Amino acid sequence: MDNIKDKCAIVGIGETDYSKCSGRSELSLVLEASQKAIKDAGLTPKDIDGMVRFVVDPTTEEEVIASLGISELTFYDELAYTGTASGGLVAHACMAVATGMANNVLLYRAMNGRSGRRYGAGAITGRRGQGQAAFMEPFGLLVPGQQLAMCARRHMYEYGTTSLQFGAIAVACRKHANMNPRAIMYGRPMSLEDHQNSRMIYDPFHLFDCCVETDGGAAIIITSAEKAKDLPHKPVYISAVTQSLVPPILETGAVSETVARRSGSRLFNMAGMTPSDIDVAQIYDHFSAFVLFALEDYGFCAKGEGGPFVENGRIEIGGALPVNTAGGHLSEAYVHSVNHIIEGVRQLRGTSTAQVNNAEAVLVDTGEGVGAMILRR
Amino acid sequence: MDNIKDKCAIVGIGETDYSKCSGRSELSLVLEASQKAIKDAGLTPKDIDGMVRFVVDPTTEEEVIASLGISELTFYDELAYTGTASGGLVAHACMAVATGMANNVLLYRAMNGRSGRRYGAGAITGRRGQGQAAFMEPFGLLVPGQQLAMCARRHMYEYGTTSLQFGAIAVACRKHANMNPRAIMYGRPMSLEDHQNSRMIYDPFHLFDCCVETDGGAAIIITSAEKAKDLPHKPVYISAVTQSLVPPILETGAVSETVARRSGSRLFNMAGMTPSDIDVAQIYDHFSAFVLFALEDYGFCAKGEGGPFVENGRIEIGGALPVNTAGGHLSEAYVHSVNHIIEGVRQLRGTSTAQVNNAEAVLVDTGEGVGAMILRR
Repeated sequence: MDNIKDKCAIVGIGETDYSKCSGRSELSLVLEASQKAIKDAGLTPKDIDGMVRFVVDPTTEEEVIASLGISELTFYDELAYTGTASGGLVAHACMAVATGMANNVLLYRAMNGRSGRRYGAGAITGRRGQGQAAFMEPFGLLVPGQQLAMCARRHMYEYGTTSLQFGAIAVACRKHANMNPRAIMYGRPMSLEDHQNSRMIYDPFHLFDCCVETDGGAAIIITSAEKAKDLPHKPVYISAVTQSLVPPILETGAVSETVARRSGSRLFNMAGMTPSDIDVAQIYDHFSAFVLFALEDYGFCAKGEGGPFVENGRIEIGGALPVNTAGGHLSEAYVHSVNHIIEGVRQLRGTSTAQVNNAEAVLVDTGEGVGAMILRR
Repeated sequence: MDNIKDKCAIVGIGETDYSKCSGRSELSLVLEASQKAIKDAGLTPKDIDGMVRFVVDPTTEEEVIASLGISELTFYDELAYTGTASGGLVAHACMAVATGMANNVLLYRAMNGRSGRRYGAGAITGRRGQGQAAFMEPFGLLVPGQQLAMCARRHMYEYGTTSLQFGAIAVACRKHANMNPRAIMYGRPMSLEDHQNSRMIYDPFHLFDCCVETDGGAAIIITSAEKAKDLPHKPVYISAVTQSLVPPILETGAVSETVARRSGSRLFNMAGMTPSDIDVAQIYDHFSAFVLFALEDYGFCAKGEGGPFVENGRIEIGGALPVNTAGGHLSEAYVHSVNHIIEGVRQLRGTSTAQVNNAEAVLVDTGEGVGAMILRR
């Protein structure tokens, strides 16, 4: 693992506007975000020789490279698992750069997630009854919220966690979104009372426990730590990055914990850090409760103590561990964590709209511990 | 690239029977091939912590790891591009092993390609009109054979290549298949005359220019060169492995050459070899003509000279460069080149049914140069 640690850096970031209706093709969104990221890195498309992408992205790799003017990719790969892929893709990009298989790798994700196919409306079913879904879909658990609400209910049952505590997470994200003009929820403040009064969608998840559905695209560029020194921005080093895939959750018998419980220690070991070294965290928040699970499973607090941990502004800017400082999936945009990675980069560049003073290390969870990274200045 | 060269080895191989009707699920085929490969490597499923797979494989990753008894994967990835993925997947497995992200990586592919969904019958359309297909499908070029026949015709026009020369490739594969009891065409000899008399499918491709469609599964295990020394079989080192993705072929204006024309020199450079160092080649043969293109594009002969190169038994066992010594896709089975990799391993273990004496280096092309590797003893 020492072959990955601090060997690579994120040197470019790019995003489109986030909206409810882009009025554009996903390809157009990919190209805008990618071109911005390449330019931000001080590179040109001709410099890009590696690409990692989501299997579910509705663009084709051929379209993207032909449109950007990339002449050849010497490294290219993909990941399924709709939401949670970006951490694994970063891992693969680092492996490629560290082994010399590619020099500059583009990672992108774009979707018309509100005006087009909506995850929350059941328009996208991952496996159509195969695998884990065979044990859920026949029982009416068709969309992620229906499936994952059970995990939240389990945590409430096991540890006495409350809806108000889930609400504290949503409120923190909304507060940060209101400092971030890019966020879809910018200008729309929300109180804990608003959260409690919002309608129930998937019990125990209220409306404001669920991520937004947005149109938009995001991209990052990964290169070697060595080369990063010559590029325009202060490099953001990837101190650790991990991937974890385990047999279906129903087999584990512990539905209120994530694979971060296994992969988290590997992540911190690779970085040579502990949770106390982390200044700010960006955590995959398809549903509020999963921020709480992640805080426990990465070891920021003991299992079962996530509820009290997130209360009283502790995860808001100015608190002990600010989380999702751009607004997260709950209030900025839902771009499958690429926006979480980008916000991590901003914190380390010192350009966040909810900047943590002297942030030196950021943990980014890109989905239930399936992918995660620690970034540092 | 020195971080990959000779750092990894293929230590286990496994195959099911190849048939026209397996009568089994694809999952069952995957599990049989994988378990055989793991056992052949002297390992147990608990040792497997990495997995690479085809996006198009009809099994899910969750089913496979749960069924095999794998507790956690710390590295996992996928590739689309139906036929040509296996070389890239080997590259990714090597990157993971070389950087310590995984120790023992399983690669598998299984399909009921004859009794189930048939590639040749148009049951599988990759992109449904997106990307490159948008320029082909509206003109009736729906299946690979229709699309790729044009490349063969172009080569005939440009260089005077003949159907008899394509036939020489098919005859070589069939000859080798008749030495290999696993091959679907075992016991069914074919002459050049038989080839010429076989019916025209996609002009200029006769029936025997087209790969077989088969049911079956194949798997390999990749680990570090160091660890490989302690395992039961003589290690087969991966001296080089490359991936290449370029904008759609229609843009290149050269439809009778493959990306091996670009990636081939990278491959040989990584291995520190030249084509003259190669003792035997396994080349992706969805259609006979592509063996000819590959021989040119990897530099075994000059561009345009592939026709004469394949004549007179030169690529048959006993010839200057035996090709597809198990029968290839044309006559052994169509498992998207995993069987080509396995035959490469057999040649270097000295256990092929058409063994090349003292074979020391094998080139495996896993599809039009998109993926390729050089294996050595």
